[in-house]
Amino acid sequence: MFIQNLQYKLHKLNTAQIITLSFAGVIFVGGLILWLPFCTAAGQTTSFSDAMFTATTCVCVTGLVTVTTATHWSLIGKLVILLLIQIGGIGLIALASVIFISLNKKISLKNRRMIQESYNLEQMSGLVTVVRKVVLCVFAAEGIGAVGYAFCFVPEFGLVKGLGQAVFTAVSAFCNAGIDLLGENSLADYVTNPLVNVTTMGLIIASGLGFNVWWDLGERIKLVFQKKLSPGRLFRTLRLQSKLVLTTTGILLLGGTICILLFEYKNPDTLGSLSFGQKLMAAAFQSVTTRTAGFFTVAQGALTSGSVMICLFLMLVGGSPMGTAGGVKTTTLAVLVMSIIANLRGKKDVEVYGRKIRSSYIRSAQVVVGMAVSVLLISVLGIFAIMPDAPFVDVLYELTSAIGTVGLSRGLTAVLNTPAKWIVIFTMYLGRIGPLTLGAAVVSRAQKRTKDVHLAEENIMIG
Amino acid sequence: MFIQNLQYKLHKLNTAQIITLSFAGVIFVGGLILWLPFCTAAGQTTSFSDAMFTATTCVCVTGLVTVTTATHWSLIGKLVILLLIQIGGIGLIALASVIFISLNKKISLKNRRMIQESYNLEQMSGLVTVVRKVVLCVFAAEGIGAVGYAFCFVPEFGLVKGLGQAVFTAVSAFCNAGIDLLGENSLADYVTNPLVNVTTMGLIIASGLGFNVWWDLGERIKLVFQKKLSPGRLFRTLRLQSKLVLTTTGILLLGGTICILLFEYKNPDTLGSLSFGQKLMAAAFQSVTTRTAGFFTVAQGALTSGSVMICLFLMLVGGSPMGTAGGVKTTTLAVLVMSIIANLRGKKDVEVYGRKIRSSYIRSAQVVVGMAVSVLLISVLGIFAIMPDAPFVDVLYELTSAIGTVGLSRGLTAVLNTPAKWIVIFTMYLGRIGPLTLGAAVVSRAQKRTKDVHLAEENIMIG
Ligand SMILES: [K+]
Ligand SMILES: [K+]
Repeated sequence: MFIQNLQYKLHKLNTAQIITLSFAGVIFVGGLILWLPFCTAAGQTTSFSDAMFTATTCVCVTGLVTVTTATHWSLIGKLVILLLIQIGGIGLIALASVIFISLNKKISLKNRRMIQESYNLEQMSGLVTVVRKVVLCVFAAEGIGAVGYAFCFVPEFGLVKGLGQAVFTAVSAFCNAGIDLLGENSLADYVTNPLVNVTTMGLIIASGLGFNVWWDLGERIKLVFQKKLSPGRLFRTLRLQSKLVLTTTGILLLGGTICILLFEYKNPDTLGSLSFGQKLMAAAFQSVTTRTAGFFTVAQGALTSGSVMICLFLMLVGGSPMGTAGGVKTTTLAVLVMSIIANLRGKKDVEVYGRKIRSSYIRSAQVVVGMAVSVLLISVLGIFAIMPDAPFVDVLYELTSAIGTVGLSRGLTAVLNTPAKWIVIFTMYLGRIGPLTLGAAVVSRAQKRTKDVHLAEENIMIG
Repeated sequence: MFIQNLQYKLHKLNTAQIITLSFAGVIFVGGLILWLPFCTAAGQTTSFSDAMFTATTCVCVTGLVTVTTATHWSLIGKLVILLLIQIGGIGLIALASVIFISLNKKISLKNRRMIQESYNLEQMSGLVTVVRKVVLCVFAAEGIGAVGYAFCFVPEFGLVKGLGQAVFTAVSAFCNAGIDLLGENSLADYVTNPLVNVTTMGLIIASGLGFNVWWDLGERIKLVFQKKLSPGRLFRTLRLQSKLVLTTTGILLLGGTICILLFEYKNPDTLGSLSFGQKLMAAAFQSVTTRTAGFFTVAQGALTSGSVMICLFLMLVGGSPMGTAGGVKTTTLAVLVMSIIANLRGKKDVEVYGRKIRSSYIRSAQVVVGMAVSVLLISVLGIFAIMPDAPFVDVLYELTSAIGTVGLSRGLTAVLNTPAKWIVIFTMYLGRIGPLTLGAAVVSRAQKRTKDVHLAEENIMIG
């Protein structure tokens, strides 16, 4: 088997390196398959860079596309795309474990460690259960989403095509891929359709919170039903991670919705012509989709500068860890904000919800944001070097979108030349593996903790 | 006396608050004076917001101007502007101390602490000497700069006007104000003039390094002349602060020059028509001026997107502490970059030049950058709310310029409406006092170091 073979050869590598290479491997193989003639629809041709771009956008669940998915690819091509999205969404590691489980092989200690590290789990026990649970949850959520979409798409497209659209959209939404088979306008035709809006937002938010938050919530809710916990104490008994994720997500979604609503209220090209309720729904959708989903109901190129600024910020932050969302993550933002506030208040320890934030987290957060901003800066400069006439905002939007694996574009993806496509490919790839890999790398290295030689400190000045 | 009176009343405030209020006080009084009719040239009228804007841009040595300095203000107005720039440049604290010295009063312990904290000095002793030295150095440097400019301006404008221009430009350059009396095009007419270029870059770099770096360098160079130190060991014996400042400044200046040269090489509106040597000089000038100087020799609105991106980054970083430059400072950038590299390499301690960087510095650097980015985001959104049709890049450039006290503009300053002017006024003010005040506040609070209640830590996930 390919993955087994790969893992055998990569025996000596650490987790971070295995993840990095696995993603690259799946992308490369996926790209080669998509490059095969039978994946392309009749009358179309696929260049090598477009095939690789599409494979990257699927596996990294980004959603930027250089060719229109609905018309460019054959049925087989679309199935390959669906599969690549699903692989990217669940994550190679989980998928590899599933293969191991289904082959009835015992998971080796090394593989356990790999899964454990990449999902940041605390106990070694129950890993098989965890992975099985992940996969079951994904399929359950996608199934529910598909049913929701079917009510809209089956009447519109007929049974077979409608169901196909529903399944594809549900998988794409839950995996935060944002790729669709509807044409070039994503969900813009459904801007006033509450069913499509609610289903999509539900899937995006659900997967954006991360599995561990759901399990934590699920356990507490079970206790509430068993009358072992009063509903009022539910939030307080959650794990710190869940509290941080829920609070930060709530603030970002609500803040984003309000800002976008205000900035677009009278914009005739976006919300201007809608009723107040529809305006609110479309603003909420835009706020939700920037959490690295990538679908859109309003034209991104028509957004006012104020909304663009808000969206750039939301896209860079992205979703929460252990889900399918990208970006630097809500917990990273929360930790940095809490750290800055603590510092301004002259406190040595960063405290939140009665817990102290470990200083290694603050440093990790710094690394994640620092690396994201560095990659963004370099890739933006790369695009400008290749395409000097590309509009500044569009380039900034495109690459923030790529690094956060968001998939929203102001139209630049369609006009990228070949070298620019490769820059975006690498940015999407770094955006997807970056935080994950870096996190793992930092954690595993920190555990070694080689005895540092203690050097003298010296005064310098900051700011 | 105004400042004495102010200090008496502010007896109970801490240093950070005193600095904040002093700056606001001088700006307000300066604005009121500029608002008086005799400060305005015949045929012009000055609105309250323009008077306050001008006072802020002078005291905060930013350099953004809503009215053309050369034509809008009377001779008295220009002298007031020169004085406000000088006050802003040397710093209120140093100036207040000079008044005390000239009045032959002993500096009280409280005042000493204030100067000490705002200049981050280590010993209490020799404060009077330090302040005297600061002022002498400023005047000496400005004098040398004025002589340099005089060789160019006297033949052009005649003796009196030429000397006036030379003194004004030298003060403005050394104080990093970037305000000029030449008209609307700053130094664009002198883009090919080596004397003006070298004089201006010299003054900007000199003041941008910070006094303490100069003193440190001066001491070592003295030792070299006394044969007590071999020239090869000069850099190694410098203080950590000096090493960080010199290295970071060097990298930024060189990197900026190369990038701008490449991005503008064929741009007919900037470097395109110049010879290679002139191209290099103009690119270097643009790289230097973004270190919060604000003069320009090429039209900022004509820069390519790539250069704009580079300039945005350089403007946000700014100069070094204890000089007249703004921005988050070179040491802040250096500490954050070193911290990220150390983290990626799995090291617990951040080491540079054989010294360990105190973790409180890393936290301070985080605060400085976090606050700068927050203020930038909020002020950009504010401008978009008021002026929705303002070009995205121009607004980003304008406010990065304001927060970094740079003074470069792509033309937005001239078309700001009144509420937008006030947003820029507050951004310039926060940009100037921000890092300084925050630094002082953080340090003084940290020294108290109240016993933190030790809370439990809990695992969360970053990135
Ligand atoms: K996406
Ligand atoms: K300036």
